[in-house]
Amino acid sequence: MPEQSPLDLAEGDPFGPHNLPYGVFTTAGEPDRRRLGVRIGNHVLDVGAAAHALGSPYAGLLARPNLNPLLAAGRTAWRDVRRAITAWVTVPAHRPDIEPLLHPVDAVTMHLPYEVADYVDFYASEHHATNVGRIFRPDGEPLTPNWKHLPIGYHGRSGTVVVSGTDVVRPSGQRKAPADPAPVFGPSVKLDIEAEVGFLVGTPSEQGKPVALADFRDHVFGLFLLNDWSARDIQAWEYVPLGPFLGKSFATSVAAWVTPLEALDAARTAPPARDVELLPYLDDSAEEEPGGFDVRISVAINGRVVAEPPFDTMYWTAAQQLAHMTVNGASLRTGDLYGSGTVSGPEVNQRGSLLELTWNGRDALELPEGKRTFLEDGDVVTLTAWAPGPDGVRVGLGEVAGRIVPAH
Amino acid sequence: MPEQSPLDLAEGDPFGPHNLPYGVFTTAGEPDRRRLGVRIGNHVLDVGAAAHALGSPYAGLLARPNLNPLLAAGRTAWRDVRRAITAWVTVPAHRPDIEPLLHPVDAVTMHLPYEVADYVDFYASEHHATNVGRIFRPDGEPLTPNWKHLPIGYHGRSGTVVVSGTDVVRPSGQRKAPADPAPVFGPSVKLDIEAEVGFLVGTPSEQGKPVALADFRDHVFGLFLLNDWSARDIQAWEYVPLGPFLGKSFATSVAAWVTPLEALDAARTAPPARDVELLPYLDDSAEEEPGGFDVRISVAINGRVVAEPPFDTMYWTAAQQLAHMTVNGASLRTGDLYGSGTVSGPEVNQRGSLLELTWNGRDALELPEGKRTFLEDGDVVTLTAWAPGPDGVRVGLGEVAGRIVPAH
Repeated sequence: MPEQSPLDLAEGDPFGPHNLPYGVFTTAGEPDRRRLGVRIGNHVLDVGAAAHALGSPYAGLLARPNLNPLLAAGRTAWRDVRRAITAWVTVPAHRPDIEPLLHPVDAVTMHLPYEVADYVDFYASEHHATNVGRIFRPDGEPLTPNWKHLPIGYHGRSGTVVVSGTDVVRPSGQRKAPADPAPVFGPSVKLDIEAEVGFLVGTPSEQGKPVALADFRDHVFGLFLLNDWSARDIQAWEYVPLGPFLGKSFATSVAAWVTPLEALDAARTAPPARDVELLPYLDDSAEEEPGGFDVRISVAINGRVVAEPPFDTMYWTAAQQLAHMTVNGASLRTGDLYGSGTVSGPEVNQRGSLLELTWNGRDALELPEGKRTFLEDGDVVTLTAWAPGPDGVRVGLGEVAGRIVPAH
Repeated sequence: MPEQSPLDLAEGDPFGPHNLPYGVFTTAGEPDRRRLGVRIGNHVLDVGAAAHALGSPYAGLLARPNLNPLLAAGRTAWRDVRRAITAWVTVPAHRPDIEPLLHPVDAVTMHLPYEVADYVDFYASEHHATNVGRIFRPDGEPLTPNWKHLPIGYHGRSGTVVVSGTDVVRPSGQRKAPADPAPVFGPSVKLDIEAEVGFLVGTPSEQGKPVALADFRDHVFGLFLLNDWSARDIQAWEYVPLGPFLGKSFATSVAAWVTPLEALDAARTAPPARDVELLPYLDDSAEEEPGGFDVRISVAINGRVVAEPPFDTMYWTAAQQLAHMTVNGASLRTGDLYGSGTVSGPEVNQRGSLLELTWNGRDALELPEGKRTFLEDGDVVTLTAWAPGPDGVRVGLGEVAGRIVPAH
């Protein structure tokens, strides 16, 4: 009996040929040569080498150390390359060429798959924003007056976006409890996560020209899980009046795998009903394609699932965020990424941050290794997710994991 | 009588050999070939060609289309290259090689001289922050409680940083006056400037490792004028709770010339006395070098000077801003830039924004072409500046100019 091929996947494998996320890897033998890979099952296909072996017209675009040239090539190229790769991993005649170019996922090292241009983070979950408002402004309206009129966002630090698996050094900074006479300095004692979905821009836009809702798919290549690590104590003291800065800028972890939007056609879903009339540039009621994505996220601490935030509950969609981000004429660059904001559903076990899950430390989580209000040194946080794919099969999203190491 | 050399400068020329700012230019004959230039008088020296002609060991570093490789080479290289260029423009024996490589400033096109990594904007003028607080919160304390404990800052959009001379399209967006029932959409009616000094990072730092106050000059290459265009109406509606976003992200203009810190040794000056005790990482009372820079800025609208903000009045220094920005472990990259925040002095005619100069539109400026509260289409805003140099001569900073064009 012949050895089973890595291309013979179990039925329903979430990384089957319906998925095909992109990443960048190196092998132990060539640790300095970064290559584009596409995940198939538990293997990574060296797509640059495959394109070369099969004489693909995309060999040049795929023989690169990161995704940016493919991202810049635009939507037609994205579609054509995906079709080609789908054929490579499904047409039996290609197997002799393809099988030698497969590496077990466990045997390679994954890297940040793109060069980040600008990084923007939004605040698009009504449940999350309401929870935060109740925690920090218990006597006021939980949502600010602008919240349902525009997707609130701010720029984050591109230079500290790191790939899944990178350790996160506990940040130090100033904090001040309301009763303290002056701020104190030290390692954050309220280190938190934010479970988010990130979106990756491929096609740039021109400065001065907004990108319409309907052009979302011409500009956005794919999505991925994102953990927007947050030091709540640093953030609370610094953020008035100009927003979060050091409470966020020390690290943002992203998955090693970017899932193309085309793999998520079956996961598109209508966003929640809107409570206020939207200005025309944000009004998606007449859009052909529903703006939401039915992505089911799991948040685990040290392997124990503590929350399951549902992305289909997000009030603002990624297309609305893109339209808003550019309506003032701000241009897009290849490699821009933006986060959805913390994903929290209506239920207690659907909250995407420890701030909410423990109600700012009031209600500790009981984990086998002890109580947790915020993260302890050594804790490993892992986000995983899946979305409905074609014919009832799941589309797996690449995980984003990070371990907290003690402050410097 | 021989023709005068471009290197024979008038006494006290603010762009003499004591200054030597760096930029990137193209010529009409080769519009696609970007080259590094150093300004001397009213000429630009093609320093890549000069290094080649004179057999300099830095020829490779200078034959580049932008400053980033030189920035990344570090402080010793910055010093040595500056020494070499100083010799090229001052030693008579070099004239036959150098003179053919000089281009009149008016005959070349200047470009953004560096690739921007992250862009951070601070809020470091006590006078500015106090004015803004009085305008927007007339019944409260003008400064937030954190203001004198840390240099408040936030991340801006790197992708919309443009070089002096680039037109600025009036941004559109949502605005809502307090009495309006809902926001309206349209071109900003409160388009403003912010006169700032920007700082350019050369030497990167490692994620997780703060940069100390004393290491400022190892990381920062130079400074330049910056205009942080601001749409006050868009900003007012969006900025609570996560800070400025579309009110700022449409454009930030920077000078075409970066002045090396070494040219500003005579301009170093002590910052104002501190009113509260600073945490050790910000306490500059024992630093060898004074943290301030005596830079005298002029703001002109359509050629008429409307304000003269004095940079030596800034409460927070650039070294403190760098230390703060990294104290949480955020890394620096070559090409990071950060703005000081609007420079405003204690006097009415020293305010660096129209918001302050007109007290949010209450007191119009009288210009020859009519009254101005905020900017009109067609207005040209020009920031110029100088600083004290060696032996009483002035160090000229490159201007930053921009013209407002109508909304898209």
